[in-house]
Amino acid sequence: MRGPGRGASGGPGPVRVVAFGGGHGLAASLRALRQCRLDLDITAVVTVGDDGGSSGRLRTDRGSLPPGDLRQALVALTADTPQTRRSADLFQHRFTPVPAGQPDDPLVGHAVGNLVLCGLMELLGDPVAALDHAARMLDAAGRVLPMSCDRVEIEADVRGLDPARPDELVTVHGQHEVAVTTGRVETVRLTPGAPAACPQALAAVADADWLIFGPGSWYTSVIPHLLVPELAAAIVASPARRLVTLNLAAELETDGLSVAGHLAALHRYLPELAVDTVIADGKAVGDPEPVNRAAESLGARLLLAPVAVSDGGPRHDPAALAAALVPVLGSAR
Amino acid sequence: MRGPGRGASGGPGPVRVVAFGGGHGLAASLRALRQCRLDLDITAVVTVGDDGGSSGRLRTDRGSLPPGDLRQALVALTADTPQTRRSADLFQHRFTPVPAGQPDDPLVGHAVGNLVLCGLMELLGDPVAALDHAARMLDAAGRVLPMSCDRVEIEADVRGLDPARPDELVTVHGQHEVAVTTGRVETVRLTPGAPAACPQALAAVADADWLIFGPGSWYTSVIPHLLVPELAAAIVASPARRLVTLNLAAELETDGLSVAGHLAALHRYLPELAVDTVIADGKAVGDPEPVNRAAESLGARLLLAPVAVSDGGPRHDPAALAAALVPVLGSAR
Repeated sequence: MRGPGRGASGGPGPVRVVAFGGGHGLAASLRALRQCRLDLDITAVVTVGDDGGSSGRLRTDRGSLPPGDLRQALVALTADTPQTRRSADLFQHRFTPVPAGQPDDPLVGHAVGNLVLCGLMELLGDPVAALDHAARMLDAAGRVLPMSCDRVEIEADVRGLDPARPDELVTVHGQHEVAVTTGRVETVRLTPGAPAACPQALAAVADADWLIFGPGSWYTSVIPHLLVPELAAAIVASPARRLVTLNLAAELETDGLSVAGHLAALHRYLPELAVDTVIADGKAVGDPEPVNRAAESLGARLLLAPVAVSDGGPRHDPAALAAALVPVLGSAR
Repeated sequence: MRGPGRGASGGPGPVRVVAFGGGHGLAASLRALRQCRLDLDITAVVTVGDDGGSSGRLRTDRGSLPPGDLRQALVALTADTPQTRRSADLFQHRFTPVPAGQPDDPLVGHAVGNLVLCGLMELLGDPVAALDHAARMLDAAGRVLPMSCDRVEIEADVRGLDPARPDELVTVHGQHEVAVTTGRVETVRLTPGAPAACPQALAAVADADWLIFGPGSWYTSVIPHLLVPELAAAIVASPARRLVTLNLAAELETDGLSVAGHLAALHRYLPELAVDTVIADGKAVGDPEPVNRAAESLGARLLLAPVAVSDGGPRHDPAALAAALVPVLGSAR
């Protein structure tokens, strides 16, 4: 899936972009990249800590790498033809209770694409080969890789989970529980603490022109990449430029974390991380000064652009985000 | 999936073949057709009475048309490229218990392709559109259709099920139970008795140059097609020639039925059925005279050919069956 050029060395060929994230945020980033209409070589690197819903059940029932976020990334990269769009719809189709069926049908809740990815990983015995095959099934405009092929869990120290004891620090286990915590996340970590990075992800990072972090659930989808030691080292060592796309609103897990605090969190978990550009929506930022200072402290310039959907929801509009990305990614290397 | 020619009218274009059957027998027939290296337009019409295993569970749990035999036909028609072969392997991959998983994992026993077909049928609300999409996913060399989109069950009157009462006639319900009955099948029927035929199957039959029946489980995979009134009428009315490929050995459901008796059973269930050619393996036939007479009574010539696999098993070798089919299908129309 890699062209002959070597973008990182300044030679000809596509601009090599590695986008890090998890579920919906990464999918928004990938949809925006596809709409850039630049010659891009896209690799998505996906957190694999999900333990909720269909992915969590496949993890428990079959020891599978959680497929849900990998599926979302593949679908976001699907080629825009009737045939591949329909296959993507199939991947996204979730079994719901049907009148002609049984109320306790154990398939209910599973997305077909999760079952396809789980089956492919078992059939081929190699998650990367499975994802590459699924990408071909969808004629995807890029490659989707897990950050690690190991079984990884996310846990967090959370303060104030019990409103009656606001200062108590408790450990919350599992990506899903962390993502929906009503307390304040103080520290997030992986267990085991040093999973092996996916080798193909390391190679993509080493070879990249741009590394893109976010948008996405900051503690459970973005920062986990920085917690895989080999991946963190590869990110620091990469000759690529680094772009951070900030979220449009706080989520449960980042309740109380300011926009500038999101950038500070990246610095906290990977102090060596230098950033070139930070993209944020002016409306989400409010007073830009704290964010500007936080960006500058990472070495980055802050680019304010209207990247939200027009209905006022806290979601990135792929076309608007693409419009912001084009001058950044298309600039001289 | 149909070319511009009109084979049935003697004009140019591919030879239009409709193959009727169920599981492994139909798959063997389709693999042989693919190996003929003739210009064929292949349509498989598949029984949909299966109520065992993964298909039976999907039928019960989700009200699905049983996908297993449809999947087998699609896989048999899959294009011979590394990508499509791998997708076919995925369709055939069956979830088995894994050490890292749960022993009561409800996915165990399901073939991935069954879940894909079930999901596609739910997504598109149309089994034929679902099968056409799956055929494109596999770049299949033909079309796969159900004989009916209705919920159909197979039942049989069986004598001697209880060895202590050898003359007693009891009704056995469901394709799976009929297929494994230890009694003698006297009558087989569908419930409800007159399901609607799949319209696209009717069109294919009307437009065909050849209709091929068998090999396959005679009572549960071959004869059910003759029990769908609209399909039986279309078969009788079709200008196509008719070929019967006989089985290589009796199965549980046909224990006690002679080779000639298989042909007599076709006549019994569809007396108007005229046949042009009967292909059988000389070793399976033994004394050819009774079979010859049974073929002649249907208007057919008997073609004896070595079509079994070389290991002595009662399975058709696709290349050998293709060698027998080529002079038949390639003959002047």
